[in-house]
Amino acid sequence: MDRELSKLAGQFCVSYAKCGGINHIEGANLPSKLAVENLTRQLLQLMFPGYMEERPLGDQEIRDVTRARLSSVFDQLSAELDKSLDYRPIEGKDAGNVTLRFLRNLLDVRHILQTDAAAALEGDPAAISADEVMLAYPGVMAIAVQRMAHLLYREGIALIPRMMTEWAHSTTGIDIHPGASIGTHFFIDHGTGVVIGETCVIGRHVRIYQGVTLGALSISKHVKRDDGGRALSKKRHPTIGDDVTIYAGATILGGETKIGDRSVIGGNVWLTQSIGDDHVVTFEAQQMQIRPRQRAEAIDWQI
Amino acid sequence: MDRELSKLAGQFCVSYAKCGGINHIEGANLPSKLAVENLTRQLLQLMFPGYMEERPLGDQEIRDVTRARLSSVFDQLSAELDKSLDYRPIEGKDAGNVTLRFLRNLLDVRHILQTDAAAALEGDPAAISADEVMLAYPGVMAIAVQRMAHLLYREGIALIPRMMTEWAHSTTGIDIHPGASIGTHFFIDHGTGVVIGETCVIGRHVRIYQGVTLGALSISKHVKRDDGGRALSKKRHPTIGDDVTIYAGATILGGETKIGDRSVIGGNVWLTQSIGDDHVVTFEAQQMQIRPRQRAEAIDWQI
Amino acid sequence: MDRELSKLAGQFCVSYAKCGGINHIEGANLPSKLAVENLTRQLLQLMFPGYMEERPLGDQEIRDVTRARLSSVFDQLSAELDKSLDYRPIEGKDAGNVTLRFLRNLLDVRHILQTDAAAALEGDPAAISADEVMLAYPGVMAIAVQRMAHLLYREGIALIPRMMTEWAHSTTGIDIHPGASIGTHFFIDHGTGVVIGETCVIGRHVRIYQGVTLGALSISKHVKRDDGGRALSKKRHPTIGDDVTIYAGATILGGETKIGDRSVIGGNVWLTQSIGDDHVVTFEAQQMQIRPRQRAEAIDWQI
Repeated sequence: MDRELSKLAGQFCVSYAKCGGINHIEGANLPSKLAVENLTRQLLQLMFPGYMEERPLGDQEIRDVTRARLSSVFDQLSAELDKSLDYRPIEGKDAGNVTLRFLRNLLDVRHILQTDAAAALEGDPAAISADEVMLAYPGVMAIAVQRMAHLLYREGIALIPRMMTEWAHSTTGIDIHPGASIGTHFFIDHGTGVVIGETCVIGRHVRIYQGVTLGALSISKHVKRDDGGRALSKKRHPTIGDDVTIYAGATILGGETKIGDRSVIGGNVWLTQSIGDDHVVTFEAQQMQIRPRQRAEAIDWQI
Repeated sequence: MDRELSKLAGQFCVSYAKCGGINHIEGANLPSKLAVENLTRQLLQLMFPGYMEERPLGDQEIRDVTRARLSSVFDQLSAELDKSLDYRPIEGKDAGNVTLRFLRNLLDVRHILQTDAAAALEGDPAAISADEVMLAYPGVMAIAVQRMAHLLYREGIALIPRMMTEWAHSTTGIDIHPGASIGTHFFIDHGTGVVIGETCVIGRHVRIYQGVTLGALSISKHVKRDDGGRALSKKRHPTIGDDVTIYAGATILGGETKIGDRSVIGGNVWLTQSIGDDHVVTFEAQQMQIRPRQRAEAIDWQI
Repeated sequence: MDRELSKLAGQFCVSYAKCGGINHIEGANLPSKLAVENLTRQLLQLMFPGYMEERPLGDQEIRDVTRARLSSVFDQLSAELDKSLDYRPIEGKDAGNVTLRFLRNLLDVRHILQTDAAAALEGDPAAISADEVMLAYPGVMAIAVQRMAHLLYREGIALIPRMMTEWAHSTTGIDIHPGASIGTHFFIDHGTGVVIGETCVIGRHVRIYQGVTLGALSISKHVKRDDGGRALSKKRHPTIGDDVTIYAGATILGGETKIGDRSVIGGNVWLTQSIGDDHVVTFEAQQMQIRPRQRAEAIDWQI
């Protein structure tokens, strides 16, 4: 068996050398999935102190714990940024200055996250308190990660923003591209299956339910990008106005598609056209067929 | 850099003091996300002994292992309940008596879970054995967690029930509110994207597929609640009868909406009206357009 | 309290003895969920060396690391296969020969995965590089696990294939049965909510979006299986041709249902009929109702 495995190891190495597309040996040192995951968890603790703790933090401790956390996050993030900037350098940027700028910007993100939490408490009758929202709502965690990843996306950082949002995606079922620009008071309820595309622009006080897709409608697959990987081509994903509610399973597509302020998009609607302010879009009731079930009828679908 | 980080730590602390909505320092000691997650995993081992083990458990060992597990669960759960009852006290209840009552009720939950497992084996042609169902079916894990969380919800316990079901949600993609009342022989197949609301009442032998929403249709966001946080307002979510099957992507909304016994709701249906016993609801075939693809036609949607 | 818990432990043991369906004490030693999960992670490292690492691997190291990994995987997989073959023996197969055959076949799987990664890079305008695809795309991880599980399914191995794909399901929200036969250049974008059934046959260059179901439409729940648990009954799930794109939320059902080459299935379509080559299936625009929102109209659905 030993000889078999050694032979096999050799064959794997030959395969590794041949199959370039999914290898990265003797190449750049890439950001580590595990490190980005740990880093993102720690950033969530910076954003929501006390909520992720095992025990309460008193005023005396908080300054020390925060200072230690910032150091730890600084070290981890600059290490991964070093690899990303090695992989795709950006003029005038180094791991240190990008990390410091990012951490400073987190203060503003905290303020915006407060509006998101308020929107969650406001928008979900099942939510009893802000505490419950912080402890239990996947939509709040997903937007928190996306807002932080968005800062790095706007800096043009390669790989890390997407790795952060894909970790949030794997935990929450919510898939928001780090490129999306999202206004304050944003609330995703339930969330599993939500997909928000790279060039989406979303207003304030927008509420979205599970399974909603804000996607692209484009005749060209090739997206022009600048040196920082940011999309240059025309917008591919929709623009959503202020105070819009989009119900479960709705799909809205296209860079030219706009949903006006205060409009409501009903569940399971499929839209590729723009909707003005103050409109309601729903399914037609007539499209369903309701009939009595025949005595001998066995019905087994979708098994 | 040291000075920069110290200065930043100070600014974070100022932000923590200002932004009340997502802080909890010098306040109540809240149930810990991590502790509730570990506790829930251990409860699953109590429910399904042997299935989560690394090695087989023989009769001789089982009594000792179970005794040890019960002690461990007792300690962990009362610790988190202490925090919850500190946060929202309930007259006549303390962590010890709630925990003991909960553990005793788990015996009944085990019996009901057996019916859920049987329903899974019965309802999924891809299921070969009860063992496969126990080892691999996310729907079984999700209902197991919900039935346990429901016990605590009915006691009026704050925060913990929702934290348990949100952990199950993050693992399975299935989002069942701890308030939902669900009959025996309940089976969710595939499950990703299922949302079942707080005031749902579901009968026996109900089968649900992925992406189904049993949600609310209400003109008022404000839900009256009793001191224990249990919903007092009129029912917001549907009532599902016995022997109902609801196929993938269907959405059923409203506290007044009833689905009668033995009825079948087809995939992607969107319902806000009641359906009697023995009915079938499906999409109309005419709503689709099927056409030949033009030679030069490039079609790229939803990218 | 001690006495209470001891009494309770006794009652749990009585329950364990009674409720046979979800017990497995003094029975077969089943494959461990945890072991299969660890094993699957290590297999992903064999498939994508360097991408899951914390640090770069140079040529010198790669042979040693690969050799060590193969040993570790060999030991773990044969241990779990021993349990599976004990549970359901297969004539002529033992853990050792199945494991060796499996590891050799992984070389071919690597080549096919390269086509899947290329399809992801080709099919998603948001993908900047193969590296990003490898590091961040849940669809690539899901198909990698399924292709490996499929090898064991075809050997007739009990339990393990489904445990592997359900772990991938819990991480990615993508549910592909190990029995599905999937051609090269397969790409699932976003992916949350995708369900692909046991007897699906999928061609090459197929692209699928989130929430797509390829499910069964059958009048009989009972599936004939051979001794190895492989489905013998007529096909329950659809056949998808080459170069087909299926957009978000589409549902295609039935073993007789065929989607022809180069056809496009629009979002949210629900199909139980076959579609020829070069066709496009979409929703009818007329089915939506778009109306102005009344001044005093409050609209709260699906809360």
